[in-house]
Amino acid sequence: MPSEPGLDQRSRVTVRRHPERGSRDQEIIHRILDEALFCHVGFAVGGQPFVIPTIHARSEDRLYVHGSTASRMLRALGARIPVCVTVTILDGLVLARSVFNHSMNYRSVVVLGTAHPVEDAEQKRVALRAIVEHVMPGRWAQARQPTAKEMKATSVLSLSLEEASAKIRVGAPKDDPEDLALPVWAGEVPVRMQYLAPRPDPALAPEIALPANVARAGRGSSS
Amino acid sequence: MPSEPGLDQRSRVTVRRHPERGSRDQEIIHRILDEALFCHVGFAVGGQPFVIPTIHARSEDRLYVHGSTASRMLRALGARIPVCVTVTILDGLVLARSVFNHSMNYRSVVVLGTAHPVEDAEQKRVALRAIVEHVMPGRWAQARQPTAKEMKATSVLSLSLEEASAKIRVGAPKDDPEDLALPVWAGEVPVRMQYLAPRPDPALAPEIALPANVARAGRGSSS
Repeated sequence: MPSEPGLDQRSRVTVRRHPERGSRDQEIIHRILDEALFCHVGFAVGGQPFVIPTIHARSEDRLYVHGSTASRMLRALGARIPVCVTVTILDGLVLARSVFNHSMNYRSVVVLGTAHPVEDAEQKRVALRAIVEHVMPGRWAQARQPTAKEMKATSVLSLSLEEASAKIRVGAPKDDPEDLALPVWAGEVPVRMQYLAPRPDPALAPEIALPANVARAGRGSSS
Repeated sequence: MPSEPGLDQRSRVTVRRHPERGSRDQEIIHRILDEALFCHVGFAVGGQPFVIPTIHARSEDRLYVHGSTASRMLRALGARIPVCVTVTILDGLVLARSVFNHSMNYRSVVVLGTAHPVEDAEQKRVALRAIVEHVMPGRWAQARQPTAKEMKATSVLSLSLEEASAKIRVGAPKDDPEDLALPVWAGEVPVRMQYLAPRPDPALAPEIALPANVARAGRGSSS
């Protein structure tokens, strides 16, 4: 990577804006990656960045992403490529007394690194299983297993979590002291992901019961 | 932009994978951008992509993004930069009879273009107002207006929507015909963003009532 102003290799995941919101704590990073249902993968082709939503899973200190589009680009370029994988969980709208101090509560993780396609069939199966289980625990064993042909048609990218950082904002607005007396309502509107009641496939045979893991998801919420 | 395999200028927002999910319909693109509460901005520095969550607003056929981090990079590079702004709204988990046909229901928009900072004070005010009103309609007029100093400390990037495309998946799983008889539950678990009851700032004077627009958000959901 060419040297860029303010972007040396060691510090490029350092949170610069609002450093008090930044963290490189592994446990915090893992928890956010595990809770987020999907991620955005960024990669550049000829200087043009692309940001594509896809699903992911963490396993130990590796991140696996379902690599359909990115992987096609990667193949087109015939090389491993630098990527940025970002997940963001929105936790609330932060309404301050001043327009300027409006914000959002959120938890995000940014992972920088070089993604490579998982080629080994067994490793790919492990990664895919992690991705399916991440979205719906218990689902892998319930569904029809992938054939060799399906495995081949599926792309998974693998990425180290070595260069990852979290950024978190929580709590009330932070107004300037001189604004506190203004007659303006201030506070937070919490936001969360809500799962609704599962909808069976119209073609589903009526004798097939809703599995407990799917029913649980439909009753609860992701946070 | 250098010529890249499979990436000519006209077609780079063409949806290649599952083309039936793609759309360049302006109204559809606008609706998704308007509903999404935040976006991810991608930009590359020296070949390394960065993907940063931030807030945005659409106004006619322009997209404004709150440009804190991206804008800092942009200033560091001293140039307009190609960006990709992506919004994704998750609508449901799609559980198929086979692992391979698992999917998600979602609506996403990818915008490619060259972002430039909004420098003109009046234009910046219009853009910021759009961003605040996007997150909470009616909020701009309720809160203390930005001072000249605050305006200067705020970065907004502007981007044309000329090169934008939507991708949408809705409905039931699409299993292979030979899987339909398998004794596996299949269907969708709908997901939506839910707003919870607003939490007043602990420092809020008790006589300041919750405004109707904030109360409405707390009762409803974004979708």
